[in-house]
Order: sequence, then C-alpha cells, then structure tokens
Amino acid sequence: MASVNPPRGMRDFLPADKARRERVLAVIRDRYRAHGFDEIETPVVEDYERLHAGIGGDNEKLAFNVLRRGLDADGIREAADDPAKLSDLGLRYDLTVPLARFYATNRGQLPAVFRAIQIAPVWRAERPQKGRYRQFVQCDIDIIGDATPRAEVELLVASLDVLDALGLEGGTIRINDRRALDAMLDVFGFSPEARPGVLITIDKLDKVGPDGVVAELRDRGADEAAVAAFEAFLRRPQTREYLPYGEAQIRKALPQGVDDEVVAHLVGIGEAVAAARGQSDVPLTFDPFLVRGMGYYTGTIYELAHPSVSYSLGGGGRYDGMIGRFLGQDVPAVGFSIGFERLVDLVGADAGDAASAVVLVHDRDVPVAELAALKAALVAQGARVRLEQRTKNLKALLERAGADGYTGFATVSSGQSAESLEVRPLG
Amino acid sequence: MASVNPPRGMRDFLPADKARRERVLAVIRDRYRAHGFDEIETPVVEDYERLHAGIGGDNEKLAFNVLRRGLDADGIREAADDPAKLSDLGLRYDLTVPLARFYATNRGQLPAVFRAIQIAPVWRAERPQKGRYRQFVQCDIDIIGDATPRAEVELLVASLDVLDALGLEGGTIRINDRRALDAMLDVFGFSPEARPGVLITIDKLDKVGPDGVVAELRDRGADEAAVAAFEAFLRRPQTREYLPYGEAQIRKALPQGVDDEVVAHLVGIGEAVAAARGQSDVPLTFDPFLVRGMGYYTGTIYELAHPSVSYSLGGGGRYDGMIGRFLGQDVPAVGFSIGFERLVDLVGADAGDAASAVVLVHDRDVPVAELAALKAALVAQGARVRLEQRTKNLKALLERAGADGYTGFATVSSGQSAESLEVRPLG
Repeated sequence: MASVNPPRGMRDFLPADKARRERVLAVIRDRYRAHGFDEIETPVVEDYERLHAGIGGDNEKLAFNVLRRGLDADGIREAADDPAKLSDLGLRYDLTVPLARFYATNRGQLPAVFRAIQIAPVWRAERPQKGRYRQFVQCDIDIIGDATPRAEVELLVASLDVLDALGLEGGTIRINDRRALDAMLDVFGFSPEARPGVLITIDKLDKVGPDGVVAELRDRGADEAAVAAFEAFLRRPQTREYLPYGEAQIRKALPQGVDDEVVAHLVGIGEAVAAARGQSDVPLTFDPFLVRGMGYYTGTIYELAHPSVSYSLGGGGRYDGMIGRFLGQDVPAVGFSIGFERLVDLVGADAGDAASAVVLVHDRDVPVAELAALKAALVAQGARVRLEQRTKNLKALLERAGADGYTGFATVSSGQSAESLEVRPLG
Repeated sequence: MASVNPPRGMRDFLPADKARRERVLAVIRDRYRAHGFDEIETPVVEDYERLHAGIGGDNEKLAFNVLRRGLDADGIREAADDPAKLSDLGLRYDLTVPLARFYATNRGQLPAVFRAIQIAPVWRAERPQKGRYRQFVQCDIDIIGDATPRAEVELLVASLDVLDALGLEGGTIRINDRRALDAMLDVFGFSPEARPGVLITIDKLDKVGPDGVVAELRDRGADEAAVAAFEAFLRRPQTREYLPYGEAQIRKALPQGVDDEVVAHLVGIGEAVAAARGQSDVPLTFDPFLVRGMGYYTGTIYELAHPSVSYSLGGGGRYDGMIGRFLGQDVPAVGFSIGFERLVDLVGADAGDAASAVVLVHDRDVPVAELAALKAALVAQGARVRLEQRTKNLKALLERAGADGYTGFATVSSGQSAESLEVRPLG
C-alpha cells in the first residue's frame, strides 16, 4: 500500500494554515489589482520542449516530467533514449516561462502595456530540506511593453503597498542596475568575457564576505590588476556607510566612470517612489554589489528585505531580452516576485471578536431542524458557525475549535430560540 | 520549437475571465466558511499506487502520471513493463482520493466532525471536446465523522446559500437515497447481484427515456417479471407529477414496501432545510430514479439543477465505506461537489461605478514622480488604477480598458494635482 504521507517534499495544509495562506493571498491579489495589475492563469503543465529550452537555467533539471499517454511497454523502450518522446509535458518550475508563452499566445487580446499578476504553485524536484519544498507558491507581477522607469516604479510601489497591507511595515528594497555592475567591472578592468563569472562570485558577497569574494576571483584566474582594483574599492570604509537613498549615496557607492544616465535612472526611481508614498526617506537602498542570479536581467534589479528575517522576501528586475525570444522581436519587461512561502510565515493569525466565529455546542437530542434554523440565523448575522454535539470533554472540544479560529461558543438545548442564544468568548 | 498554444485540452485565463473566476471562488469560499467548513489543501500530485487503488473508478485510466526522477535510459527500459516503477506520482483526477489520504494522514489534528472545503484543480487526460477540459476546478465540501442527517442538511443548506450569494436563486436539488433505490429494486424482484447493472441502466433515464431504460434492462438479461413490474411503475402517470417536497410526495413516488426509516430520513432533511431557509416550499425534489454514477455511495444522494441550464451543476452523497479503507475502520462521510466550470459561466461580470476602476491617460512628458503620486492618491481612495500613455487611438485604448473591467478614466497633463483630476465614466 502507498504511504499515508503526502508525496516527499510536499505538504498538506490544515485549516488554520490554509486560512492564513488564503487571507494573505487575498491581500496580495487585492493590492496588486488596485495598482492596475490583472491576474492571469496558465495550466500547471507546459510543453516539455518549452520547459527545456534554456530559459529556466538550473531549474530545468529539477522539472517533474509527465509521461506521455498511450505508450505501451514497447513504446516506452523505444523512447528510453529521448526524453522528449517519453514526456510531452512537465510541471512548471517557475512562472516566467509560462508568462512568456502566455504573452506569445494571447498578445492580441492584451493591452499594449500589460501588467500581469500570477499567483500560483510551481514544482521543483529538489532534495527536500528544512524550509524547502517541492511544491511552493510564487507571487509574481510583471509589466510587459513598458521600457520606461514608470514600470519599475509601479512594481516597487505596489509591492511595498502589499507589505504595508499585511502589517509588515519596515520592509526595504535593495536596488542596483546590471548596467551599473557592467560599468563598474569595466572601470576595474575586467574583460567583458570574464563578466558572467565575476558576477557569480560577487553574488556571494553576503555569504562569504569580501575576503571570500576576492579569493574566489583569484581562483577563477581573473585579471590580477582588476581584482586588486576591485578589492581596494570593496574595502573602502565608505562603501558600507549608510546614507539616505538618492544621488549623493549612489554617486558615493559607485566608482568614478559609471555612466550618468544609469545614475539618473536610479535617482528618478527613488524620487517617484517617494512621491507615491509621500515620504522623503524612501525604503530603498542602493547596493552596488547586488547581482541576482538569473542571466536574463538587463537593467534595474532589486531585492526585498524585512528587518524580521535575514533572507530576501522577493525581488526581480528588468529582462528586456527574454519575452521577445518567443516572438522574434524585442519586448521590454520587468518583474517582481514575492517569495510567498517566506512571507506567509511572518504574517500573524487573524483576530476576531467572539461573535464572528461561533461554535454551537448542542445536546444530542436537539432536532436537526432546530439546529439548522439556529445556525442559519447566526450565519445571516455574518458569523461563521460550527455545530458540535456535546461530548464529555467540552474543554478539549472548545480548544480544538479555538485552534481552528473560532472565537465564541454557545450551548444549545432542545426548544432554544435564536434570541435566547448566549454567545460567550472562547478561552 | 514547441507550440505557442497552451497544452492540448487546457486553457489560459485572461484578465476578465480570471477576475470573474476568482470573484466566484471567493464567494464560494466565504459562504462555505460561514457554514463552518474549513478549507484544506493537498499537493496536486499523489502517490501513483494510491491513485490506482480502485477508488477512482474510470478516472484512474485518465490520470497524468509523473515520470520517476533519476531514471537513466537503462532504468526506463527496465521499468517499461511496470507502470509503478516508471511513475511514482500522478496528478490527482478528483478531490476525493486526496481527501481520504489527507484524513488518514492528519486525523489526529482534526475535529471529531471534520467539515472540509477543497477548491482546487484536477486533471484528466480525456479526449478534448467542447466544454471538457483536461485541467478543471472542483469545489468540494465533505463532512467526515457525522453519521446523522445533520451532515446532509449542513451540506445542502450551505450549497444553496452559495447559489443565492452568486445571484443564482432558483436552484433546486434532486434528492434520493441509495437505500430507497435498493429497496425499490427488491420490491420489483431484481436480485441483489443484478443491482449494480440495473442501477447503471436506470442512471440513463434522463438521456434515453423510459423506453430506452426498459429495452436496456431486457438486453442485460434482467429478470423479466422484475422488468415488467419496474416498467409498470415507471409508466404510472403520477410518477412524474409535481408535488411539493415532503412525506406525501415521497410516499407517492416510491412503490409500496420501502422502509419507513428511509422515508423519515428524507422527510427530516426537507424539514431542516425549510427551517434553515425560513421557507415552507424547499428547493428540493424527491427523484426515485436518481442514481449518480459512483459505486461508493451508501445513503442519501443529490444533484444540483438550475433552470438556466439543462445539465447538473453539482451533486454528491453519503459514502460511509470509503474513507475507512485507509484507516481499517468505518468512518461516515458525506460530500457535495460543485462543478465550478459550469457554474462560473452562469455568473455575470461585476459592475462598478466610474470611480472604482480608473484609467489615468497621461501625456508622454508627465514626470514619473507626478504619475506615481496621482496613482497613489487614487489607490488610497480605494480605486483600482491603470496608467496608460496617451496614444493616437484613444478610443481603442479606452475600449481595451473597459473590456478589462475599468469603469472610468481621467486625462493627466504635466503639473496636474490629484484634486484637479476629473474622472469620467468609460464608454
């Protein structure tokens, strides 16, 4: 017999967890919609060939592939050497590949600037470990068709609004630009060919520190003069000194010689976020060493942090080259992905008053019609109502209901009217 | 290159459709929660062996199976003759098998009477045809652990409330009981062994009519005296005559000799639904020929109809034997499944006033900080706001926004204040 557990690395969600997840998702959906984004949905599977076309990076290797229907044993043996014959579909491992496919399919029915919300699970056959799951939810917003920084501003303001609406004020966004990174590496003398490898190493700065980064650059055989120049810059005291986000900070954090246009772009984003939020001190931090892993970024990149946790809660960036790969023309695009599984753990349970969720504890002999009428009367008043037949251990019964979010209870005897019900707070 | 379309038999949902789907799902979720049901979630995949253990009936053959990870070509060839070696997981084809597994896994953390909501997609590799999809959403509620008719009453009242809340008043529920069916077949003289086949034939009454049913019973080689008795009963004029739901109708619709206990059970359900709804004429119809396909039903069965469509919108019944199969003991259970894909098509689009969803049509030169501030001001007032840079064809732009649910627009020039914005209705 099969195991009684959910499949390896995957989770069941019990009522309290599921209620919290749905509540947080409803807030995210509501805020993103308010900011002019439209939710879409794609099937959970995509064509095998599309999932394995190189856009997914390392995630392609982690795909769950679906066996082609109608293959008999001989057909399977024939297909054994050709994965695309054995599998025609796979579960999506991210929401970016499906978005690109969706845009190519439906472009004619979408506005010229398309602001998409995707809130959906993805699957990766990773080795299960603490805090990593094989099915998890991503919340992505993307703007396709807008090459101006308006797009970045809309994404950042909407995502900060989501945090505020969830009671997670105090989030900050670290921001950088791939063009600033490229210019910085030019200034130090790294060759364009060495750039991808150097960026992979710099991406580890938070984990391994400046010593680790410099050592790894040398291990990579990077140009010694460039490494030395980079090291000197990295070790400047002012590199990590705090200044409010703005032109002064950005200029100070970058080496001489980075293009003014990129600086103006980053400054303008900060001014617009400040205007939207009515704050002079915006929750942005310029970080010249922020890289973000994926190879497809072409401009602004950013990562969402919150003081309550050490890891990133999300992030994204501009990826102008990728959507166009399915269309044969360039289409500007920029996205922001919230790590839902990380975010949801930070949000507290919902509180409600005693009358909002009521357990009706009834004697065994109360006729079902009386119970149905009492329950309907409370539901009509806006309450959530659970019937429970009285048991010897009333305390355990009420504790169980409290854990499920119930806030009040009333006892019911035969012949009781809705008016005479007395709802008392639970616990 | 892979096709630009979604996988065969599956759909993308564009903004207007997706918004309507989420709105309907939110109503269903809200109403079922009010009636004391708790939403749960299980992974989209379950163990291959569990999906193919015989509970799923014909749906087992339609499962999408997931290729086991880490098999090389030799491993695939070795596994070619053993489906369970080639696939360790499959996409669920219903929500009942996962619910039974969930209950076995998590029973210790659930209340003694567990009222579950499951709102989730399922997958079946059916031949694609109009109105049938390979990925579709089911909305199930189930009560596990309550053998009394309270459970049926809670399911029926909650489901009728969902219809009301969606503006689909006028739905009715056809109701029957497998025990009444069994007793009826006994009265006519069909043997217990012939029962499953006879029920499969009676289930076709709506499609093939009385003549078709009688002919098929004879084709099956059913006992001729029993068929003749059944035919005479079926052709009585009063069999299809309308009477309000209640004891008189139920007695009249059944042959003499059906157990009083079953009749009292069905009458009691009607009285309790009436009490909950404050109606004397309940939206129930007793139908002695309602069968419902699945073999696992043991008691009450029902099907939801609506005057606007000829097909069933959902249904369910009591299945006391099934959950226990994973536990080695009997656990009473009863469920109601709404066919979401059918229901959602009946629900109209949401209407809103001009100020509730606003397109800001701005000149090209309006600074991004001004736009961000104007947008934030409207969002803070509760509006949904989309930015659009003015194009030559303003009409097309506004029509597109109207199709996406926007109800008003305002034009924005450089230097404009939030106070001077004039929101006009769209279209």
